[in-house]
Parts: sequence; C-alpha cells; structure tokens
Amino acid sequence: MTSIVVPADPVGTLSDAWRQCVGTGRLNLALRQDYRASLELVQSQIGFRYVRGHGLLSDDVGIHRPYDAAGHRGTQYAFTYADQIVDSWLELGIRPFLELGFMPSGLASGDQTVFWWKGNVTPPRDHGEWAALVQAVVRHAIDRYGLDEVRQWPIEVWNEPNLVHFWQGASQEAYFRLYEVTAAAVKDVDAELQVGGPAISPGADDWWAPFADFVTARDVPVDFVSFHAYTTGPAQPVPFGTYQTLRPPQSLLDQFARPAKLLAGTRLEGLPAHVTEFSTSYRPDNPVHDTAYQAASLAPVLAQGGDLVDSFSYWTFCDVFEEENIPTSVFHGGFGMLGHRQLRKPVFHLYAFMARMGDAVLARGADHLVTRDASGRVTVLAWQPVGGTDAPDEPGSHALRLSIPVGDATTTSAYAHRSRVDDEHGNAFTAWRRLGRPASPSRRQLDLLHEASEPGRSTTALEVTGGRADLTLTLSRHEVTLVEIEAVRDETPPWLHDARILGRAADGTP
Amino acid sequence: MTSIVVPADPVGTLSDAWRQCVGTGRLNLALRQDYRASLELVQSQIGFRYVRGHGLLSDDVGIHRPYDAAGHRGTQYAFTYADQIVDSWLELGIRPFLELGFMPSGLASGDQTVFWWKGNVTPPRDHGEWAALVQAVVRHAIDRYGLDEVRQWPIEVWNEPNLVHFWQGASQEAYFRLYEVTAAAVKDVDAELQVGGPAISPGADDWWAPFADFVTARDVPVDFVSFHAYTTGPAQPVPFGTYQTLRPPQSLLDQFARPAKLLAGTRLEGLPAHVTEFSTSYRPDNPVHDTAYQAASLAPVLAQGGDLVDSFSYWTFCDVFEEENIPTSVFHGGFGMLGHRQLRKPVFHLYAFMARMGDAVLARGADHLVTRDASGRVTVLAWQPVGGTDAPDEPGSHALRLSIPVGDATTTSAYAHRSRVDDEHGNAFTAWRRLGRPASPSRRQLDLLHEASEPGRSTTALEVTGGRADLTLTLSRHEVTLVEIEAVRDETPPWLHDARILGRAADGTP
Amino acid sequence: MTSIVVPADPVGTLSDAWRQCVGTGRLNLALRQDYRASLELVQSQIGFRYVRGHGLLSDDVGIHRPYDAAGHRGTQYAFTYADQIVDSWLELGIRPFLELGFMPSGLASGDQTVFWWKGNVTPPRDHGEWAALVQAVVRHAIDRYGLDEVRQWPIEVWNEPNLVHFWQGASQEAYFRLYEVTAAAVKDVDAELQVGGPAISPGADDWWAPFADFVTARDVPVDFVSFHAYTTGPAQPVPFGTYQTLRPPQSLLDQFARPAKLLAGTRLEGLPAHVTEFSTSYRPDNPVHDTAYQAASLAPVLAQGGDLVDSFSYWTFCDVFEEENIPTSVFHGGFGMLGHRQLRKPVFHLYAFMARMGDAVLARGADHLVTRDASGRVTVLAWQPVGGTDAPDEPGSHALRLSIPVGDATTTSAYAHRSRVDDEHGNAFTAWRRLGRPASPSRRQLDLLHEASEPGRSTTALEVTGGRADLTLTLSRHEVTLVEIEAVRDETPPWLHDARILGRAADGTP
Amino acid sequence: MTSIVVPADPVGTLSDAWRQCVGTGRLNLALRQDYRASLELVQSQIGFRYVRGHGLLSDDVGIHRPYDAAGHRGTQYAFTYADQIVDSWLELGIRPFLELGFMPSGLASGDQTVFWWKGNVTPPRDHGEWAALVQAVVRHAIDRYGLDEVRQWPIEVWNEPNLVHFWQGASQEAYFRLYEVTAAAVKDVDAELQVGGPAISPGADDWWAPFADFVTARDVPVDFVSFHAYTTGPAQPVPFGTYQTLRPPQSLLDQFARPAKLLAGTRLEGLPAHVTEFSTSYRPDNPVHDTAYQAASLAPVLAQGGDLVDSFSYWTFCDVFEEENIPTSVFHGGFGMLGHRQLRKPVFHLYAFMARMGDAVLARGADHLVTRDASGRVTVLAWQPVGGTDAPDEPGSHALRLSIPVGDATTTSAYAHRSRVDDEHGNAFTAWRRLGRPASPSRRQLDLLHEASEPGRSTTALEVTGGRADLTLTLSRHEVTLVEIEAVRDETPPWLHDARILGRAADGTP
Repeated sequence: MTSIVVPADPVGTLSDAWRQCVGTGRLNLALRQDYRASLELVQSQIGFRYVRGHGLLSDDVGIHRPYDAAGHRGTQYAFTYADQIVDSWLELGIRPFLELGFMPSGLASGDQTVFWWKGNVTPPRDHGEWAALVQAVVRHAIDRYGLDEVRQWPIEVWNEPNLVHFWQGASQEAYFRLYEVTAAAVKDVDAELQVGGPAISPGADDWWAPFADFVTARDVPVDFVSFHAYTTGPAQPVPFGTYQTLRPPQSLLDQFARPAKLLAGTRLEGLPAHVTEFSTSYRPDNPVHDTAYQAASLAPVLAQGGDLVDSFSYWTFCDVFEEENIPTSVFHGGFGMLGHRQLRKPVFHLYAFMARMGDAVLARGADHLVTRDASGRVTVLAWQPVGGTDAPDEPGSHALRLSIPVGDATTTSAYAHRSRVDDEHGNAFTAWRRLGRPASPSRRQLDLLHEASEPGRSTTALEVTGGRADLTLTLSRHEVTLVEIEAVRDETPPWLHDARILGRAADGTP
Repeated sequence: MTSIVVPADPVGTLSDAWRQCVGTGRLNLALRQDYRASLELVQSQIGFRYVRGHGLLSDDVGIHRPYDAAGHRGTQYAFTYADQIVDSWLELGIRPFLELGFMPSGLASGDQTVFWWKGNVTPPRDHGEWAALVQAVVRHAIDRYGLDEVRQWPIEVWNEPNLVHFWQGASQEAYFRLYEVTAAAVKDVDAELQVGGPAISPGADDWWAPFADFVTARDVPVDFVSFHAYTTGPAQPVPFGTYQTLRPPQSLLDQFARPAKLLAGTRLEGLPAHVTEFSTSYRPDNPVHDTAYQAASLAPVLAQGGDLVDSFSYWTFCDVFEEENIPTSVFHGGFGMLGHRQLRKPVFHLYAFMARMGDAVLARGADHLVTRDASGRVTVLAWQPVGGTDAPDEPGSHALRLSIPVGDATTTSAYAHRSRVDDEHGNAFTAWRRLGRPASPSRRQLDLLHEASEPGRSTTALEVTGGRADLTLTLSRHEVTLVEIEAVRDETPPWLHDARILGRAADGTP
Repeated sequence: MTSIVVPADPVGTLSDAWRQCVGTGRLNLALRQDYRASLELVQSQIGFRYVRGHGLLSDDVGIHRPYDAAGHRGTQYAFTYADQIVDSWLELGIRPFLELGFMPSGLASGDQTVFWWKGNVTPPRDHGEWAALVQAVVRHAIDRYGLDEVRQWPIEVWNEPNLVHFWQGASQEAYFRLYEVTAAAVKDVDAELQVGGPAISPGADDWWAPFADFVTARDVPVDFVSFHAYTTGPAQPVPFGTYQTLRPPQSLLDQFARPAKLLAGTRLEGLPAHVTEFSTSYRPDNPVHDTAYQAASLAPVLAQGGDLVDSFSYWTFCDVFEEENIPTSVFHGGFGMLGHRQLRKPVFHLYAFMARMGDAVLARGADHLVTRDASGRVTVLAWQPVGGTDAPDEPGSHALRLSIPVGDATTTSAYAHRSRVDDEHGNAFTAWRRLGRPASPSRRQLDLLHEASEPGRSTTALEVTGGRADLTLTLSRHEVTLVEIEAVRDETPPWLHDARILGRAADGTP
Repeated sequence: MTSIVVPADPVGTLSDAWRQCVGTGRLNLALRQDYRASLELVQSQIGFRYVRGHGLLSDDVGIHRPYDAAGHRGTQYAFTYADQIVDSWLELGIRPFLELGFMPSGLASGDQTVFWWKGNVTPPRDHGEWAALVQAVVRHAIDRYGLDEVRQWPIEVWNEPNLVHFWQGASQEAYFRLYEVTAAAVKDVDAELQVGGPAISPGADDWWAPFADFVTARDVPVDFVSFHAYTTGPAQPVPFGTYQTLRPPQSLLDQFARPAKLLAGTRLEGLPAHVTEFSTSYRPDNPVHDTAYQAASLAPVLAQGGDLVDSFSYWTFCDVFEEENIPTSVFHGGFGMLGHRQLRKPVFHLYAFMARMGDAVLARGADHLVTRDASGRVTVLAWQPVGGTDAPDEPGSHALRLSIPVGDATTTSAYAHRSRVDDEHGNAFTAWRRLGRPASPSRRQLDLLHEASEPGRSTTALEVTGGRADLTLTLSRHEVTLVEIEAVRDETPPWLHDARILGRAADGTP
C-alpha cells in the first residue's frame, strides 16, 4: 500500500494545461442541438479555454463559394455557418483553436477525401487563392469579434500532414509550402496573430528537424508547435467497431516530451508546445473510450502532462462525431467524454474531478495528486495505476494511506467528500451492457443510464490531530476517486442531541 | 429474513391517493423564487395533482380590501397576488385544493392570530360580508380559469377549528355556522362546486358526530370530509428547534381509517375522505423531517394509505415555510420534502420512488410493495420496518428475499436498477452534520450537499429461469430502496468480446 | 372601398387545415440547434400539428446500415439520429407526417442524386429489402412511441415521382411498384396505419387517373392522396439567387381543388387530400419568400384553403435548409417563415395572426376574414388583394370599412388591438436592405433586425352602439393586418380623473 | 424647431452615473419569482451596477434572532434569506448598495413603524448590540463573498432620518450617534469598507452643515454622502391612489447639485455624492410613474445628471413593492420601471435607450443628446421638453432637425433605426385604460398589454453627403425617441434588382 505523509507546504503549482484545450467533431457538427447541450454541460463542469476540430474550410461549413451565373463569376466568402459556430462557442466561454483545413472542393487540386464526410485532403489548386481564403477568414473574425479577441486564437496549419490519408502523398514539401503561404497570409493581416504547426500524428519524429530547418532557412514565422499523441496499436475491425492493443499511460507522457528534445538547439526551441489531440485510441469506434480504464489510464497524464507541454487537448469532448459514418448505437466507442444523449463517461468525471483541484500541489505520485486551494480546502485525486495490453491484468483493488494536512492546531474534525468512478460507479457503459446493449434505448432506459452515470458519493468525518488527518482509500479496479477535504468549523449549538430526534434519549423525556 | 414468492398475477391496483395532494407553506410564499424552483422539481419527479395550504384570505395575499378615502367607501376584491399564485400552480400542472382561511383583518371580529405571520383566527365580523368574499373569490376563479376547471377544485372550510390557536375558542358552534354560510355561498355560485370540512386535527373524534348531525339537521351541502393525521407527542422546545416522541407508523393508518368508522350510518358515510395534512411531526422545527427515519416510517403509509382514504397530503412539499419565524439554518427541521436550496430529503426520494411504481400490485407486505406497469417492468419498494419512540431501536440491517416474475419463458436475464436512501445515501442531512452544521453553507458547500442528496445507485444483471429472478436485498438502518427490474432483450452482436477492449484477449491478437 | 356589415351569427366554421402540417428542411437538419430554436418559436406562436420533410431514409440520417467485417455480413437498422429527431418533434408537440425517401445508397439501384446533399433518387435495388427497411422503421416507431401514436402519422410514399430529378426517369410504372410494395409492407405491420401518395408536383394531372386505376386494379391500400402546389414560373438564376414570375394567389386554390375533380368517380374519391407542399416559389433562393407580398398573397389562401383540402403544408417553417448548398447570406430567399437567426418574416406573422382567429367564421371575402371565439372576441384578418406578375402593380393603399358585432346591448366601448405587417412593419427584409444587405450581420445588427421584425402595433377604443362598432382600416401596400376586438367591461372607479395625473386639473388643487 | 449641426468631434464623455444604481422594494421582496424575472429583464436590457433598498435588518429578512429556550439565551445572526437575496443579485451582475435599516424588533427601543410591512424606525435599544449586528452582517458578507467584493459595496446608514415617519422624532442627534457607532463598527472590520450617509430626503438642507460639523468634530469616517430627490408636491389621496402636483424636471437637477454647494469648504467637500433615490413622485400609488410623461420628464435628467453626482438611483426598478399594502390592480401608480407581470413602462424604455448610447458626447441640449461609440455608430436620444403642473400643457408635437456626422467621405448612405415611446407607442398604460382598466387582466389581455408595451420601430435610409446626414424628427406629445445611425457598407451585388422579385421587371423576362 502506498503510504504518504503529504507535506503542508506546496511543492509546486498545478498547471492549467490539462484544460487549455479540448477536441471536437468537425465544425459543421457544432451547429447541432446535442453538440450545444453537450458543450454546455462540459463547460459548466470543467471549463475548457479552447476548442479545436477539423473542417473549418470544408464544404459543409460553406465559406469558400465560387459562383458563375447570369454572366457574373467570382468567389464569395460566406460565414453564415462559421459565425453561428463561433458565436456559440464564445457564448459558452470557449475560444477557437483554429485548424485551417480541409480543402474546399472549389479550391482543391484533386479528389482525395478522408472520412465518411469526405474532407478533401489535396493541396490548393492555387496558393494565391488559398492565401486569399485564409485572409478572408481571419479578417472576418477580426471584423466580427475584434482584433484583441482574435489575437488569442492560435492558428494551426492543417492536420496530420505526415499521414497519407490526411494529406495527399503525405508530402513534406507540399506541406511546408502550404505552411509558408499560410503563415505569411496570416501575419500580413496582423503581425501579432499566432500561427503554428505542423500538427503531426504520433510516429513522425522525422518531421521535426526538416520543419525546423525549413522555417529557419526561409525565415517563416512559427509561434507554436503542435502534434498529437495516442497509445493504441493497429485497428482490428469488427462491424461498427474496432479493437486495438494499448500501450501504458507513460507512453503518452513520453510522446508529450519528445518534440522538445528533438527541437533543442533549433530556432523552435522553447516555443509553446500544444498537443492538439490525445487519447488512448485514435479510432472513433473503440469501446475503450467508454470504460473506467480510460479514466484510470489518463489520470496520471492529466496530473503530470502540464510539466511537459502548454496544452494537451482531449480528443474529443463529446460523441457528436461522424468520422466513420453515423454511430449505430448509443454507446459505440466514440471519442467523447460525453456519449450521445449527454451520457457522462468515466473520463468526463476524471476531468470534472480535475476541475475541483486547487492550484497548489502538495503531493504527486504514481497513484495520487494532492492539492490545496486558496480557501484551504485539500483535494485528493487517486487512481489505480494501470498498464497496457502487455501488462498483467490490474488487481481487484488498490489501497493508499495518506496523512493530510488540514486546518490548524485547533481543528478537531474534517469533512471528507468522496466521489468515485469505476466499473460499478459513474459508469453508464456497465449499466448499458447489463441492459442488453440496447442500440436505441427507450426514454425510460435513458433515464436509468443517466442515473447510472452519476459518480458514487460518500462522506466521512475525519478526526484531525495536530493539523493532520489520516485518509485510507481502497480503490476498486480501474477506479478514479476524488476526495475533497475541509476543516470543520463546528456550529453545533450545545442544545442539540441527535438521539432526541427519535424521542429515545433519556434526557429528552418530556 | 422475509422471503416472498411474488405472484405473477396482480392482487390489486395501486391507488393514486398518495399523490393526489401535497401541502404548502402559506399562499403568500407561493410568490417566491425558491418556492417555484422547489415546486418545479417536485412536479417533474413526483407530479402531485393538488396543492393545499393556509392563508388564501389572509392580509398578505391581499384579496379583501376595504377603502375609505376622498369620500369613497367600500370593499374592493383584489386578485393581484392570488392570480400570480394560481397561474403559477396551473403552469406546473397542479391544481388548488382551496382552504378558505384565515380571516382578513378588515373582516375579523377579533385580534387573535396564529403563527409568526399573524393569521387572524377569529370568526367574521359579518357573515354576509364573509359570504360575499367567498363568492368573489370563486367567481373570479371561474372568470379566469373557467367553470370546468374550478369544479375540480375542492373547497375546504377553514383549518383545524377544533384547536384554540386556529379558531378562536375552538367553538364548534361558530365553526358550524361558518361552514353553513360558506357552503351556501359556494353552491349559490354553482351547485357542482365541491365543498367540505371540517379539517380537524388529530384527537378530535368528538367532532364527527356533531358535524354529521348538524349538516343533516340543516341540510347543509357536504361533498367531502377532511381531517389531519400526525404521530408525534408534545413539543420539547430548544432554541430554534423542537424534539418530540414518535408513535409508530401504523398510528397514521389508524388515524386515516377512523372517521369512516365514526361516520358509518350517518349522511356522511361514503363521502370522499381527504387527509388534508399528515406527517410524523406537526412542528416546523423538528429535525425528524430531515432524516431517513422519516422516509422509512412513511413508506408503509404510502403503500397502504390509499385503501383507507381518497387522498393524504404530505405536509409540506418544501421548506419555504414560516410558521415559526424565518428558519435560521439551511436544515432546521422544516416540514418540506425539499429543504432550502432545493436540497432533496430522504422523504422526497420516497415519493420519487413511489412515482416510478406501476399500477398493478403484485405483492404488498410489512417491508415491501411490488408492482408491475403496462410495459412489464416490475418495481420493488422495500424498507426497513421502524417503530416509534417506545419501540426498540432498529437493527443495523434488514434483509428480504423475493422471487420476482419477470419476462417470459425465453427470458434469461433481467436488469435490476437499485436506488437507495438511508443514513449514508441520499442524505444531505448526514453530510451537513459532518460539515459542522453550517447554518449558511457556502456556495461550494451547497454543491457538496446536493451531491450528497443523490440516492445511491447500483445495477445488476439477474439470472432469469422459468420467468423468475431471485432478488436478495440487504437494507441498512432506516433504508428505503427502489429496485426497477426489466427483462433484458439482448442486442449484443456475436462479434463483441469485451475482453478485447483492453487488447488482452487471445482472439484479439492482431 | 369594401364596406361590410359583418353578421352577428356565424356563417361557418374555420377549418384547421392551414395549421395541420408544415414543411421542413431535410430531416438531418432537425438535429440542429437553430432548427430547434426555430421550431420552438413556431410552435409557441402558431402550433402546427404535423411536420413533413425529405430525407428520412437518406444516408445522413443513417438508418439503413449494411456491414461486412471480420466475417460478419448483414444489415443493421440504426435509429440513433431518427430517434433524436422524432423525440424532439414530439417534445415540441408536433408529429411526423412521414415521407418515405430518398433511397439509402446501400439499397439504391443507381447513382442519380438530387440537391447539394445528394439524395439518391433511384428505385431500390431489391424491393424485398426496401420492404424490410420500411417495416423496420415503422416497427421501431411503434416500439418507441406506441401503436396509438404511430397510427396518427400519415405515411407518404416518396416525393414528386413525376419529376425526373426526384425519381429516376420519372417512371410511373416504377413508382406504382414502389407504392404497392410500400403500402403492403406498412399494412403488414398494422392494418390501421395510414399510407398514401403519390406526392406529385404541380403540372402532373396526368398521374391521377393511372394512379386510381392501378390501386383499384391491384387492390392496393390508399388512405389519403397527396400533391403539391406552387405559383411561380421557370427559374431565372443569378449568383446565389433566382427570380421567377408569379401567378396570382387564386392559382393555389385552383391547384388545391383540382385532384378532387379528377378523382371524382374513382375509388379515391372522398379520401383525405393533403397538399404536402405549397408556397409561391418552389426555389429555396427566391427573395419573394422574404417579402410582405408573400404574406399578402397567401392570406386568402389560408382563409379559404380549408374548404378544399384537409391540409396544406407551407414549405417550410424555417430557413435551416440546404437544397442549393449553404446559404451565403442571412436573407437569401429561403423557403422559411423564419429566416436564419430566427428572424420572423411577414409570412410568419400571417400564420401567427391566423393562430389568433376564432372558430366561428362571421364573414369572409376577397380582402378579409372575420371570426369570433368562444369568449366573444372578434378577430379581423384583412389584407391588400394582390395579383401575380401580369397583374397591374398594387396601389399604395387599400381601405375597408366593417361594421363589427361586439358585446351586447349594454356595451358602450370595445378595445381594438391592431398588428400590421407590410413593407415597413414587421419586415426585417426591408431593414436589412437599408443596412446594405450585410451577408453576416454583426450581433448588434441582428438585434436591430429582430426589432424591425416586430409587427407594428396600435390600439384604439371603438365606440359601440347597439352591439356594433365601426372599424375602418387603411392598409399599406402588401399589408396584412390583424385586429382583435373585445367588448370593454369598464372597471374604472368613479374617483379616477386622468387629467389629475399631471396635477393640472382644477379639482385636484390640493 | 431646434436645428443643430452636431459636431464630428466629441464635446465630452457620457458619465455612467445614470446606471450606477437602482432602487428596489424592501429586501424580503427580492426573494420573489416576479422580482427575479423583473431584475433579469432589467439587467439584460439596461445593466445597473448596484441595487439599493430598505429592510435588510427588518424582521422579515430574519437576521437578528434573539433566543431564550430550554435554559439557553442569546442572539443568533441568521443569513438564510440574506444569502439568497445577495446570491441572486450577484448572479444577475448587480451588487448591493447596502442600506443599514430598519431596526429589528428585538433590538428596537420603541414600537413606531413605517409602511404596511411595519419597518421599525426607532433607535437601537443598545448601541453596542447594534454595532455587533452591523459587524456580524459585514463579516458574514466578507466570509461568503470575499473582502475584495465587499469593499465595493457602499454602506449607507439608515434612510431619510430627517423625516419623522422614517426615524423616530427625526432626531438629528440620535441619527448622528447611530452614524458614528455604525461607521466605527464597519471600519473596525476593515478600514477600506466604504460608509456614508445621511440619506436625507428633499427639503433637509439644514442637515448638511450639522452633519459636516459633527463628523469633523468627532473625526468620524465618511466615504460618501447620500441624499434623495423628488419633484412632486403633497399627496392628494383617492382610494388605492394618489395625485400630486409636479415641479419641472430642472428641479431634480437643482436638487442633485445642491449638497455640493452646501458642503463646499467642509471636510465633506469633494466626496462621492450619491442620489440614493429619485423620481418624480415619492408615492408608490401615483399613476404618473406609468406614463410617457415620466419618461419625457426624466430624459434630460439622465442626460445631464452625471455632471452633478456620482450616481442617481431610480426609485425603483419594478412594481414588486408594498409600502402601501398590496397593489389592487396591475397598474397602480407603482414606482417601478416595470409594472407587474414585467410590463415595460415608458421609463423602462428611456433607460434601455440610454443603455444604447455611446461614450463620446457629440451634442447635448434641452431636447436631445447625441453620442458616438467606439464602432462609429451615432445615437440620438430626443425628447419633448416638458414642464410641471404650472407649465402650460405640452403641445401635440415637437420637431428637431439635426445634421449628423456619419461615416467618412466615401459614405453615401446611413441606416437609421428609430424606437419611440409616447402616449401611443411603447405604452401599455394607454392600452390598459382602453381595455377598461382591468385590475386582473386575463392571460390573453396580458399578452396584448405586452405587445402594446413594445416601442414603435421604424427604419430609414438616410442620404449621406460629405460625411453628414440630415435627420428630421417630429415627436409626439411626451415622446422619447432613440435613433441609432450607422454608415452603410453596401454589400449589394450588381446582379440584384428588387423589381424582379415580383417578376415584373423588363430585364427579368425569362
């Protein structure tokens, strides 16, 4: 059993990198009612700062609009949907982390597309027109939201150009050209706008040095670097689903750390680094996303990732998502923290737990993070350490003992409020399996699933001596637990005797 | 341990009497924001049909308004607030069970008042003016809401006239006169309006025969009879609170049954009988209302009360209530199912559980009620049987074993969804005591209390053989548990193997 | 000037056919946030009973889902989106008028598509699979919503099969085969489900006799007949828009009436007839939809259409619509009563005015409809009569004089409340043109446009003598006006003298 | 006719004093549903910074709670309601301007009360206990909301102590003692909290010098001075109402200016000055509050008051108010900007118009205020100048001609958006009188009244030459008009010809 004496003095500050950004389904989906309901819930319980997703420039957002009729020919830039999307984000307190892509069909040089929704992944037919499009987008945003606002929006050039299905031929040369044209176009509008890339997928270490060389050689602006991190192996398809092997959580932290090492000594050293996508699986139909394992395996990543990068963006906040066609079942292994119908998955709760942590880190380890906030409240996040596919299966329980600093010398009691998520608690997926995996649950079954998604809650009064309380936690398999602890200021008046409530106390005899 | 083979065929129908009506704080309080929020919650989870409370005619609703200025003198009937109150009820799908009282000061014959808010409890100075007031109220309601609507509102004459603090001198003669004048005034507006009384408190058996005699002798209309039921003994005050002894739950059922016995053979025999107030304690500052005991003790009453009366109205739906001055603490022993800030008490959950029961009763006993609804879902309400003050303390646990009929011969599995309320679950009062009983919890503490008020939830897959599943329930002290059971229609496709989610299954090897 | 003495006794009853049904953009769009907000507004102000649109079976609703992976092959029917759509409609009090179409690509016999969103318009590759799909849809609906509910949903087979772009080759034979297979499949699920067609466009009179012959010869069930009506001529395209000539409003009424004449004497005589689409223009980019002309020209159609058919469904309730790609501007000639951002167009107000009419028709003419409701309120809808393109331009004003029966012999005054929509009032389109037609109005400009969309309101006190009041209305060009009239019950007390409010009255001298 | 050439360069900055603070009914009423709905509307359209009202310490908020039971005796400070009130204000973005009063009955030295709700107006029985109460209130606020927050809340000592009905005997000496004790108590908690007074009514010039002398002599802290301003003469009662004579609007500005003159040369010179109440009438039952005259007469006060004081707080934001018993009619001459049922009165619109003004003042005169905001939008507020009772009656109309600077040399057109309020527009009171003054309007009549309360709107395209547009405004009697003007950036494409919409243009021939 882990046994820790949590120091009373902070050992560090908890970075906000974990909630700096979150991923979203393609931008057209941001027009949806369930998307909006999901984002409201996420923002009210977690509060991300930025949102990033594909498809801003794709046909179904409708910005790039060539015309040719009645003797008139030209290109219109239309923001009918783009405005609705961004207006709605800003209303919910979240800003765009702009990803420029994919290619509008009217500007594309080829027919190759990605995903069910057919994002065109070919270079522009004309780089001048591309630059004009980029500038139209940025200028319109400035017109509508103001320069001060738009300067806060990172602008990322394309998505995973190192993969052949996201960028025709995965051509480095073509990407670098696109990057240069885009960066110049953006900076031409306003020099303080932030532009970056190369938004590469895992396994593309060989892109970093050439990218650094290229931008150095041609003096191309780069305000941040971006890349992705995932821990699953190759897809093993079944109908409407995928299984994959899993690498251990540490793999994600290793991936976060790697670019900084590779860029040391280059012009890009020290730039802000954004993991613009991460999760276990990169597949939108892998049921691991729906499990408590997902939460337990990411807990140490959220606890430590901020030491390595400036943001790491969970891919994605909800299952309103359609890369592989429309989901055929309420649970379908989607990327989201929230399932369809706003069902909260275990990883949603992990994030909601993180949102309750304090700023001051008191202790951090392989199975715990302890913080304190300005009001003195101490918060413990604990989890069962899990490995990947090759690790031995996790045991049925895991125990920690912590000595928690709380209150002051006069404190005699602390209130401890525990919220737990594991295979049985806060787990609608488990309940749904027991229900027989109804693809389209009835309205009544949806009510049951929502109830089943609520974390288990329990409260205790801890004895405090010398400003310390002992907290022993036994975690179930794949459990993530939050314990919120505050020193009790006892307001009980002397005349109260709870035994008298049932009229049974001797001293209560009328 | 109780061991029951629940029959597959219904033994009866569950009456709706338990949710026919609910009590409310004085009507002026219905104008409040927290009242509205509380009633919305109650209606969405429970759905009462009628609401009854004091003070419709009291000065703070402002209906009876004599004037004398600039040479003009008369009485105005003003419905500024009354309309807001009733409009708001009807919007939430609940109708008034009108209680006519207390006396407007401009019509009162004396100064005696009851409660902190000073309801005048003296007879009218002029019975003709009283009749005019009653008719003005009824006619205005018909004007605004239509005759069909108002004919559905029972009209009850006064409240607990057998008690000296509710009716000056507790004069039976004066009450009978008031009743007669009122009933005549109401029927004069429309003969199908429903009028009744005498709304007496417990311990007034001696009022029934005289009331029956009086209305028979003078041929006074009576459409229903009404009375109250409570189980606590005398108040033992402490500052801002009261302790009392408790009689066992059966006492309530006995009280429900008594008037029918006393009225047998009179003209009032067989009339609808409404318990227009009931609870354990009749004090608004007795902490028993906040406990799991309250729920456990009322569970058998809700299960059986409908056999005895046409309605029994829990006093009251929320703690927006001021009989004994303004509560000084968030929990204060108030009557409500909901505490301040819409904190759900155990008895709220008991009612919400009842709202999920089916129409067909399969079994009913001292610790359980089993029903089935039209869709085939079986619902078990189980509770620990509790006694009163003089009973031995309840044991720490109570067990039941039930053989439940579910599905048909082909069914192999059932989903069981359990919601529990006891000292530890669904119990904000326990959490609040551990927090040191903060009179004014911080906004953060209120969040914790709301979480603590959520029932414990757990799910299981029950094996079904021959259309039957075995359900064993172990209840904690003062627990009330709801188990919702439905036959599983398994939609799991043949290609799913959950072991592969973690990539560990032999057959998942890539 | 029209001068009418409105009779006090009703001459008829106003049919509800005008609000029986309304059109919608393709069903996938029903998932959108702005669609939901628009439908809420429409339902709160108008209250349609049914909604009909294309694309239930198209790929972007995702019902028909063949699979072939890991050795498993088959077809899944998935209702993930369909359930969200129908759940949401029912929540807003509107039922589906199901249109079965277009063809899922996995079941299509060819590649021909219609619209930007590529609805496949070819016959099924296999009619047995089509029947299986239809039955799966109907059975799922019954499972989820109950048989009693689904029996109330008309089921229409396909859309405008007489046009080559909606049905490959416009083949009558192929359509009749589809109809027969579909009707049989539906009735096989439940004989009381209602099925109908042929949903033909204007100009297809030659389909009626063959359709009647076919269903008679083969004894195919038909529960209702359906068809469409529009008044515009051929499209004259400009970029992002279309102009067309207009036929006069009477043309719509003639179209409504025609099928009944053609079907006289056939087996289809007397069946319910539904105009499942109508408007002036059949183009989603014709600005006439945004004008006051649209409202003025449809006013007589709404007033009289119910005499001819059982429903006529305005195409469509809002501009969340994408037949011709994504709109490039907030106003774009869309079909909707509501523009983007829920801007109310004049025709929205026409419908909202109709929703305030009473049941009893007192008078009806070329420029007016006068009704009375159960409470005695008299409502006048008046409009400037307009012609089509070939008619001389409408004059700048149009006047009516009406003698209105109101109150009784004792009534001395009536309150008249006028709401007007014309080129200047209730007309956001006019304001938008004055603003310079901003394609993407700023948030502030949207506020101004919403204000400009509010009808002009004015109130008057009419003198009443002998139960009659004279009402003279002068209408502006293209005006539609609603006047709501109620007899005044004067509650003014004798002591009020409004001149004293400013302290100026002689008798107010202190 | 006024004819003004509005300069293009600002002549000053518009102070925010007009929306710094607003008055409210007694604090207990802040618990009400209609209060909350009203404040939401006011905050969304106007956005006040602070709210001030009576009764924080009165019994019906329940803070001061002596107890004596079961051998326990003492005083509890209870914040059950106070927290709900302040929580709710802060949620709506408005802060308390704390008024300390009236006296809790448990601390009062006498029985004298004011108003229907019986606020006790006697000095404390014990000044030490009073100081303890004040400190308990302030400390609790700091605990709950933080010191930074509470330092922003002005703390005003009592209300109108110069009047015998608000302060027993109107004793200056007793007030000064109360002030001193209170200020010391507040500063003892935190020296940066702001305390002030003397909150005197109009006509108490003789209090200023003694107050300055007293606080100087005894070195008592004063952070701001406060006083009230009204323009009506003595009350002339009728049943449920009051008439009064009116002084001209300039009288208010004179009252605002007076204390600064009287305090010149004293220690109080230059302190922030707050008019903590102002309106025309000081009676809650004077119908002038409901009229367009009220708006027209206060328009110049809002335009200029900020030059004289730091805030002037309209008394009050809504008619949820009960000084003279419960209103007997929906309109009753209440103080509010909003009537019951959130009916917007003309003065509400005046404030909403002010909320749309820019920061830069371009022109200001007896009938107009012209501003420009950062985006270049020009806003004109114009009103008919009105006098008081002794002035000749206002003429039926009033005209202005303004030359408005708009856009730049390239601008050819401006959009002008006019919103008007007068006897006929934005005037539910007029409509209500025509309806026969229904005391309790039906739900349908309420809908009509809400429609009638909407300002008249009209739009125009102004021709712009040389950066200037001519605007001619003809105002009705008692009209207040807002005109919002912005330069048009014309996006009309060359292919649009509106004449073709109706298919009538020659060039549209197909």
